[in-house]
Amino acid sequence: MSLAEFALIDRIRARSGARADVVLGIGDDAALLQPAPGRWLAVTADTLNAGVHFPVETAPADIGWKTLAVNLSDLAAMGAEPCWGTLALSLPEADAGWIDAFADGFFALADLHDWRLVGGDTTRGPLSLSVTAFGQVPHGTALRRDGAQVGDDIWVSGMPGEAAAALRLWQRGALAVERIAADTGHEQLRQRLLRPTPRTALGLALRGIASAAVDVSDGLLADLGHITARSGVGAQLALDALPLSAALRGSFDEEQARDCVLRGGDDYELCFTAAPSQRGVLQALADQLQLPLTRIGVIQTGSGVQADGVQGPGGYQHFAG
Amino acid sequence: MSLAEFALIDRIRARSGARADVVLGIGDDAALLQPAPGRWLAVTADTLNAGVHFPVETAPADIGWKTLAVNLSDLAAMGAEPCWGTLALSLPEADAGWIDAFADGFFALADLHDWRLVGGDTTRGPLSLSVTAFGQVPHGTALRRDGAQVGDDIWVSGMPGEAAAALRLWQRGALAVERIAADTGHEQLRQRLLRPTPRTALGLALRGIASAAVDVSDGLLADLGHITARSGVGAQLALDALPLSAALRGSFDEEQARDCVLRGGDDYELCFTAAPSQRGVLQALADQLQLPLTRIGVIQTGSGVQADGVQGPGGYQHFAG
Repeated sequence: MSLAEFALIDRIRARSGARADVVLGIGDDAALLQPAPGRWLAVTADTLNAGVHFPVETAPADIGWKTLAVNLSDLAAMGAEPCWGTLALSLPEADAGWIDAFADGFFALADLHDWRLVGGDTTRGPLSLSVTAFGQVPHGTALRRDGAQVGDDIWVSGMPGEAAAALRLWQRGALAVERIAADTGHEQLRQRLLRPTPRTALGLALRGIASAAVDVSDGLLADLGHITARSGVGAQLALDALPLSAALRGSFDEEQARDCVLRGGDDYELCFTAAPSQRGVLQALADQLQLPLTRIGVIQTGSGVQADGVQGPGGYQHFAG
Repeated sequence: MSLAEFALIDRIRARSGARADVVLGIGDDAALLQPAPGRWLAVTADTLNAGVHFPVETAPADIGWKTLAVNLSDLAAMGAEPCWGTLALSLPEADAGWIDAFADGFFALADLHDWRLVGGDTTRGPLSLSVTAFGQVPHGTALRRDGAQVGDDIWVSGMPGEAAAALRLWQRGALAVERIAADTGHEQLRQRLLRPTPRTALGLALRGIASAAVDVSDGLLADLGHITARSGVGAQLALDALPLSAALRGSFDEEQARDCVLRGGDDYELCFTAAPSQRGVLQALADQLQLPLTRIGVIQTGSGVQADGVQGPGGYQHFAG
């Protein structure tokens, strides 16, 4: 390990904060943590590579935020409280300015969730960021993908599709950073792509209410397909029930907007199932969290995800699940 | 995520095995694990990049072994029992044959230690492998870097320097894979570079005996320097006490051989400190584990690592610690 690498690690360590259950943080062969009694550990790992998972021109602070957000989103989808984690960071060269800007975004989100970095590695290589995040969830209360029951409602949080819309605008050159006024719909879309909000509070509140949950990283169809496959059921989506935000409608026609929702991903909303008896509880929860929760379909027998056409009965497409 | 990536993950998942404390393995938003009561979690993360941490022509099975070994070595240096972990794998292209060969080496070592892969991510990018490994250690018994006391002996396990020797031979073209007969000293050196042995049993046995420990990844001087810095002490190394294996002496003169030990790294032996009253216990432990344990110096007041010259009193070098 070079002196430059040591110096980079020190810059990150200085930002990593404290938590009562961190017995020993960064700086030994391993960190030591004190798990809470009566809890399961939830563990997830996600990698972001430059040019694959984010445009190469993305600002380092936004990369930092998103690197952690995609992992906290997985914990939220399990109903787990975020606790600790590690960061493996490959950088083309030792660049303290880049590290500091990256840390601004990364730790801004970490601090919001009382999540602490307890280890990691800094290596030389093409820009790549890999987080392993740990959360805790009381025994038996985790939100899994395999619990959906025939007759359950299908719900989605927030306004999915906005991140995909931003990426499509970006790819066609309509969303360069410097050309967006802060009060436009485009800016709202861009923030949703760059700074996704892990739905931690929702995930915790859904324990005991949702029968299954997944975060929407690959598009609603693909991720709902994980629930149907693991639960051994089918899903019927009501296309005209999909929430389409004003910003999304303002940039795309309805068919394109719906395609952003169904196939777009990168929003990190939660898609979950719950018995119809939970509708009132969920509407109250939406009010309490000030987060839209929209009922978009129903779990049925069979397999895969079907979507009703908006043109009336009989019109539908079938997607492999 | 592409279908090719899903298929790669399935190939890895099929090899990941079972453990009673894995409530839910790979395949949901996060794995669920049941920590044992009365234990701390030990968490470490290390990344290997092609061309930086191993020669690009390294066989995938050897890369798999080493990727996990360097992390299990960190757990051993904490006295922690290896349990679970995640793997972030970036590959230039979806190559099932490469993945299978990599998995051969990775899971051969995992199975030896009853260590289970519970999550990860497969992405497209330059070859890079990042593991986060978790172990468990009873409260208060972890081997830290900051416990060395003035008067303690300094010990090292095994025959450090052999991996560095192999790398130097490799770099000068004397260690191409196909040109080594299996019974030569060179082959022994090569195996030490490619397939390092994490000293798990030693680390567990050193609980309550060693006052401080570190694994030798960056060379004895650098890693012992971590102990002195964190413990607020100095170290005096006896150069003529350093163990030099026959294979090492067979390929280098004594000064070069000693340099491999002092500055070489990559052996993943343990360097540790213990009170002189533990000498008998440690010799018995060496016999029991059939692993040499060599007393190579003493902890003293001051800071940094000093090394006595082999030419007599007064001859020494001073290294920053």
